[in-house]
Amino acid sequence: MTQIAYTQRVCDDQAAIGSFLESQRIGVLGLETPDGPYAVPVNFLWHRGAIYFHGMGSGRKVDVLRGGPRACFTVFHEDGTVTDPMPCHADTAYTSVLVFGDAEEISDPAESAEILQLLVEKFLPGQYNNRLTGKLVENYRSGMDNRPVAVFKISPTQITAKQNRADQADIFEPQA
Amino acid sequence: MTQIAYTQRVCDDQAAIGSFLESQRIGVLGLETPDGPYAVPVNFLWHRGAIYFHGMGSGRKVDVLRGGPRACFTVFHEDGTVTDPMPCHADTAYTSVLVFGDAEEISDPAESAEILQLLVEKFLPGQYNNRLTGKLVENYRSGMDNRPVAVFKISPTQITAKQNRADQADIFEPQA
Repeated sequence: MTQIAYTQRVCDDQAAIGSFLESQRIGVLGLETPDGPYAVPVNFLWHRGAIYFHGMGSGRKVDVLRGGPRACFTVFHEDGTVTDPMPCHADTAYTSVLVFGDAEEISDPAESAEILQLLVEKFLPGQYNNRLTGKLVENYRSGMDNRPVAVFKISPTQITAKQNRADQADIFEPQA
Repeated sequence: MTQIAYTQRVCDDQAAIGSFLESQRIGVLGLETPDGPYAVPVNFLWHRGAIYFHGMGSGRKVDVLRGGPRACFTVFHEDGTVTDPMPCHADTAYTSVLVFGDAEEISDPAESAEILQLLVEKFLPGQYNNRLTGKLVENYRSGMDNRPVAVFKISPTQITAKQNRADQADIFEPQA
């Protein structure tokens, strides 16, 4: 079990963690590959207690993901640098959430379509009138490799969250 | 050698990559641990062609880093979602840089002090009059564990960068 060293910053409010994950657009997918660690930013969706994201049907990320690997999905937001009279005590105000779990590819086209629909509604709300269907998703092929889009899910086995809050007055603002 | 699948987005302009890394504040440090992948956001400095960051003298990240592990340091910036009449062609405008290399702890207190000084100047420009010295850094101990701050360096063995540019007019803006 992973323990966070800096316990005074631990956040274990599950509702707050869920709200934070819903509010953010990009996470970094951390994977292990034969060539070493690999960490790549992706748009994501937090839905029914899991992380979802999509990718092209081929490429390094997808090759690793098809093996159902262990993953660490990291989402953060920085509020700014916190000033202090002592430089050693200067600090960063932030929220970070690390979601640990195995990645799996969604094999059901209808479920893939549902997730892609939710991604479209998250990132382009109000833009499209027609809902995505499993048939459309199956038929759509990338112009890069003629393979269908792949949708992946990380079901968390553990979530760790850290938060360092600061008063806005303590956030550093550069002199104009 | 890592190849990027989506070659039309590859950026190999080293000056542009350096400028981008200088302009960003946070990267995600991807590591392999016995428990699986681990990806954690840190403030960083791009200096003389290497990534530098600091951490407390103990904790999971530092425990792994002391072993001189392979690392993937990922920096990204999102410009927004790019609209398209077809939802399958909607896209994200972004820049991402992945720096691969082994992490090492800086053992020379004077070099650590130089890097910490540059970090202070990056994140809190004009805030402090006195420069940090090796002696000060050696004497400063964390209130958490009474250990000195640790400074780490990743010397790149490979850097991959991707960029998907978009006209501002094509960036999605939600209806008010």
